Amino acid sequence: MAQQGNTTMVRVGILGATGYTALELIKLLLRHPEVQIVTLTSRQAGNTDIASIHPQLTGQLDLVLENVDALAVAARVDCLFSCLPHGASAGAIASVLETDTRVVDFSADYRLLDVETYEHWYATKHPDPERMADVVYGLPELYRERIVDAQLVANPGCYPTSAILAMAPLLKAGIVDPTEIIFDSKSGISGAGRTPKLTTHFPECNESVSAYNVGRHRHTPEMSQILGHFCGSQVGVLFTPHLVPMDRGILTTAYARPAQTVPEEQVMDVLRTFYENAPFVRVVDHLPATKDCVGTNFCHVTARVVGDRIMTISCLDNLIKGASGAAVQNFNLMFGFSESTAL
Amino acid sequence: MAQQGNTTMVRVGILGATGYTALELIKLLLRHPEVQIVTLTSRQAGNTDIASIHPQLTGQLDLVLENVDALAVAARVDCLFSCLPHGASAGAIASVLETDTRVVDFSADYRLLDVETYEHWYATKHPDPERMADVVYGLPELYRERIVDAQLVANPGCYPTSAILAMAPLLKAGIVDPTEIIFDSKSGISGAGRTPKLTTHFPECNESVSAYNVGRHRHTPEMSQILGHFCGSQVGVLFTPHLVPMDRGILTTAYARPAQTVPEEQVMDVLRTFYENAPFVRVVDHLPATKDCVGTNFCHVTARVVGDRIMTISCLDNLIKGASGAAVQNFNLMFGFSESTAL
Amino acid sequence: MAQQGNTTMVRVGILGATGYTALELIKLLLRHPEVQIVTLTSRQAGNTDIASIHPQLTGQLDLVLENVDALAVAARVDCLFSCLPHGASAGAIASVLETDTRVVDFSADYRLLDVETYEHWYATKHPDPERMADVVYGLPELYRERIVDAQLVANPGCYPTSAILAMAPLLKAGIVDPTEIIFDSKSGISGAGRTPKLTTHFPECNESVSAYNVGRHRHTPEMSQILGHFCGSQVGVLFTPHLVPMDRGILTTAYARPAQTVPEEQVMDVLRTFYENAPFVRVVDHLPATKDCVGTNFCHVTARVVGDRIMTISCLDNLIKGASGAAVQNFNLMFGFSESTAL
Amino acid sequence: MAQQGNTTMVRVGILGATGYTALELIKLLLRHPEVQIVTLTSRQAGNTDIASIHPQLTGQLDLVLENVDALAVAARVDCLFSCLPHGASAGAIASVLETDTRVVDFSADYRLLDVETYEHWYATKHPDPERMADVVYGLPELYRERIVDAQLVANPGCYPTSAILAMAPLLKAGIVDPTEIIFDSKSGISGAGRTPKLTTHFPECNESVSAYNVGRHRHTPEMSQILGHFCGSQVGVLFTPHLVPMDRGILTTAYARPAQTVPEEQVMDVLRTFYENAPFVRVVDHLPATKDCVGTNFCHVTARVVGDRIMTISCLDNLIKGASGAAVQNFNLMFGFSESTAL
Repeated sequence: MAQQGNTTMVRVGILGATGYTALELIKLLLRHPEVQIVTLTSRQAGNTDIASIHPQLTGQLDLVLENVDALAVAARVDCLFSCLPHGASAGAIASVLETDTRVVDFSADYRLLDVETYEHWYATKHPDPERMADVVYGLPELYRERIVDAQLVANPGCYPTSAILAMAPLLKAGIVDPTEIIFDSKSGISGAGRTPKLTTHFPECNESVSAYNVGRHRHTPEMSQILGHFCGSQVGVLFTPHLVPMDRGILTTAYARPAQTVPEEQVMDVLRTFYENAPFVRVVDHLPATKDCVGTNFCHVTARVVGDRIMTISCLDNLIKGASGAAVQNFNLMFGFSESTAL
Repeated sequence: MAQQGNTTMVRVGILGATGYTALELIKLLLRHPEVQIVTLTSRQAGNTDIASIHPQLTGQLDLVLENVDALAVAARVDCLFSCLPHGASAGAIASVLETDTRVVDFSADYRLLDVETYEHWYATKHPDPERMADVVYGLPELYRERIVDAQLVANPGCYPTSAILAMAPLLKAGIVDPTEIIFDSKSGISGAGRTPKLTTHFPECNESVSAYNVGRHRHTPEMSQILGHFCGSQVGVLFTPHLVPMDRGILTTAYARPAQTVPEEQVMDVLRTFYENAPFVRVVDHLPATKDCVGTNFCHVTARVVGDRIMTISCLDNLIKGASGAAVQNFNLMFGFSESTAL
Repeated sequence: MAQQGNTTMVRVGILGATGYTALELIKLLLRHPEVQIVTLTSRQAGNTDIASIHPQLTGQLDLVLENVDALAVAARVDCLFSCLPHGASAGAIASVLETDTRVVDFSADYRLLDVETYEHWYATKHPDPERMADVVYGLPELYRERIVDAQLVANPGCYPTSAILAMAPLLKAGIVDPTEIIFDSKSGISGAGRTPKLTTHFPECNESVSAYNVGRHRHTPEMSQILGHFCGSQVGVLFTPHLVPMDRGILTTAYARPAQTVPEEQVMDVLRTFYENAPFVRVVDHLPATKDCVGTNFCHVTARVVGDRIMTISCLDNLIKGASGAAVQNFNLMFGFSESTAL
Repeated sequence: MAQQGNTTMVRVGILGATGYTALELIKLLLRHPEVQIVTLTSRQAGNTDIASIHPQLTGQLDLVLENVDALAVAARVDCLFSCLPHGASAGAIASVLETDTRVVDFSADYRLLDVETYEHWYATKHPDPERMADVVYGLPELYRERIVDAQLVANPGCYPTSAILAMAPLLKAGIVDPTEIIFDSKSGISGAGRTPKLTTHFPECNESVSAYNVGRHRHTPEMSQILGHFCGSQVGVLFTPHLVPMDRGILTTAYARPAQTVPEEQVMDVLRTFYENAPFVRVVDHLPATKDCVGTNFCHVTARVVGDRIMTISCLDNLIKGASGAAVQNFNLMFGFSESTAL
């Protein structure tokens, strides 16, 4: 670790630092009193000042993007955040894990439990299949203990975070039938990344709502596997993502069948008890709006019993609790800082 | 009817002309070659130039809002559109129906089939309960024949139109289990009306999504009753409306169980056959976006079979197909014009 | 011209029909009782159903884009609308003008009065320089008479329309100093076209305002030349365009010096008198908003005297009065229809 | 000051804590390691949990709004932030200033230099006129030294901050003619406050741009007086505010005449030199967008010479650098903290 004044700073590097999650990660880390950002990489934007990519960083971070490989970065840092795309990320990380450097991986490469599911849904060979089963899924609300000692943490997807945080306590408590859970999610457009496409071109997606990837979004198996792993049952998930004309935020409306008749107040109690000590999940009585959480690392969740259904509604900032805030939360746990430092 | 040149114009009046549905209605009627708008009323904005309320009408309609009662208007017009709030609307219409004037009612007063359901959900006494059971529900795709001769047509709600158009053909064909249908709807904010409230204040609702009235939105019984009436079965509906930061448009994502195993292509065929001759419903293969329909009287609908569910996705402009366009479509049928005139 | 029933339809074709102005043009022409759209071309999207490019046209126009050249289209139509980019447009049109087909050109190729200015600002050789000086600028409010008989009309730019309509009457009346007029314009993002770029990527431009092309936007010489041509004086223009997070609309705030002291009411009178018979310009007392005009072919304009300045504020829909509505207005004049048919 | 652990915390209170500036202030102060928020007041929402007004604070600040007067608050705190409306604010503050408590006033009450101008523009009697001339205007970039020792700081208006930061250096350097400066500003809608009105009702202001209060916005004399006071000359300002459909951000485009011919690079140098040591103003070469600054306390500014004009373009977050961030910056200077703590 680096010395700065009389404190020891944790040196961090970010692979693939031109996207929106990297920008949010940098902004959070700049607030972290014990972190020094030493390296940012980009294959395409190498040798460019980071502030010319992200004007929000003007005068705040004076680093030039480097086109260097993961191992070279690993040699300079204590913690590596990989914002590379799936496939590329595991390829880069596999070698880093031979060193002492610890890694938070934003990609989907290590989130699933088995190679078959990964290769089916991602339609590509996994570059590091042996490791998959042992990687810790970086949702501190479920796996806090395991994150503390992990060398590699798989940072969760944004949709799965909103879905799992709402339903895991109810499944774990056995009050929800695990076989058929519907997650209907509404997401802001930053979730689609920073590469211009027709579907995210302003005059196309502004003033419009649409569903996409119906029945085949890659976050579906992540939801069912993690819920199943945590709750010890087979979980069936139907997931429908929608694009909503706003920058950030995910609201997930979930529909499940009760395993037995259960009053609304009991459902709420299960949630409240589960999150009693979680600094970033708030169980609220009112119907939450994404704006309540945007710009924060909080997830707000509530539940309703309507007819013969249990519904949950949860929301978060897809770039923070759904990505970079979760990564910093994991980093804090891994390096022994207070879980909410910089958040 | 009024004579203008050598054509006979249908004279129309609008009760409660200051809201958004009235504005859209006026804009459509101004394009109608056989219509003359003769009276606009408002209790609060009486004696005000309509263009000062709706600047979009500047130089296009030179009428002053009048604070007159429905019967006085009825005496001057062939067709009365009531944009009054529920309760007030039936009160005004009941007397008009003693005259020859025909009426399209935008309110919810005559949409439900029985007084008990109305009084339960609207928490008010119905001013004209005897008539309820016989009123024609103004969805031409379901009740075209009956609309032609009706003196009074109950113009459908915006959410129910999007929900019913998607599911009615599947229920009628018996391929969907009627007992448990989920409608998860996303609506633009004009649906909340023109009266400023904190929830529709720009800095509150912009860049945010939220659910509201979960389990208790008044369009729920309208959906279940009309679907049940049309399909001849008891229909169970769970309806969740959401506010999305855009002016207009509703997207409804519906989740149902198949009554028997049915391939996706067959579900699509049921929809295509049902809407073969409907000028304003398009069954599309792609996933439609609200923007495809905004500013038009079209509803786009598609279906997917995902796992053991049948899903439909439908969208429309809440102010046009969901309100004023439907009203003009009904008007055209009632007065013998081509169904799509001015639309 | 084509026969349809017992009317003779004007056959039209559109070159470059995949963009937003073409979409709006098609929507307007579909409402035109005397027009038949016979051909749509695209170099890149040839052989594609137009409704798959523009889902708004689903079930309304059943045409396949063709990759054919302008002359082939000219042989089939009475009027050709060119939505090709500058340079390409004049290249295509030059040959068409040897036939009887009449042309409305959306590009900038024939808007400027001289080749030098064109080649300086557009940094390209003009493919048809001889014709430039004689082409009619298609702003009916200034050149109605000349448009009627023109074979070729240069459809104005969106920003110039908003700027010229506000200032031309004041310059013509001699109450404004022509040497230093500032146009500060705010535009919706559809003005940037349909090709995805980082600057029009939703998460970049949403919730943000910025100026662009300061001091070097190509509409600057169009404004000064047309104002100068119409008013018979040398006009100096400083033009600053801004991108605003909305789909459509331009608001232009103009700052000028009075040529002599003049009360606000007199400035308004000059505007009112000038536009007395213009069907699509409304001089309003209040401060207009772009939303008042969006979806229409209207331009709303007002004036204020503040300190020692005359200000005008004008707004319009950049895709309609600023492009396709103006084109239809020109078409109506050219083919002897009422100026406001379909508008 | 309060003891907490082994640090001494500065105790602060906020008068009028239900609005957007108060919310941002609270969020910033919660990040401040040396601040303890002890009291929040509201006349209308007394006895309400602050998190029920601002759900963003759920689980982060556990305070109940109190309906108590300013003096009672002053007795409990070291620093009082007044977010009361003009008139009410000076009334409350006047008595507090008899105590030792220091005050940052968000209202306009103490921003102007003389009573006549205040009473003319605000159309009300000033409750504390004697004090006006001596109050320090809280723009640290101009008056840092004076802020340090001030008991009362008048926190600047959002528009004036964006205007003054851009032009003050150029006026001070004498390169701009002070007699006629145009500020054309574009603001997000949070600037209009949290009280619902038709003009800020989502379906009215979304997808629309408009100018308002042309020639009579109350920030006009604030701009001219502060620029004049700082630069020692009479400054003439024409100010036009516009509402833009976004939550936050102000972009101000300014047009001035050079006092003498001056190249663009020299204008930029004047800005760069002036802000060399200012932690929150960044002179940028590119054209800045409001989004570059939103969520931060930064103001980005650039300059261009176009024809015979000097233009500046500046942007900031109206709720942070334009209000609450500036207040915290002032607070830091007043209480001896690093200027950028919590910012």
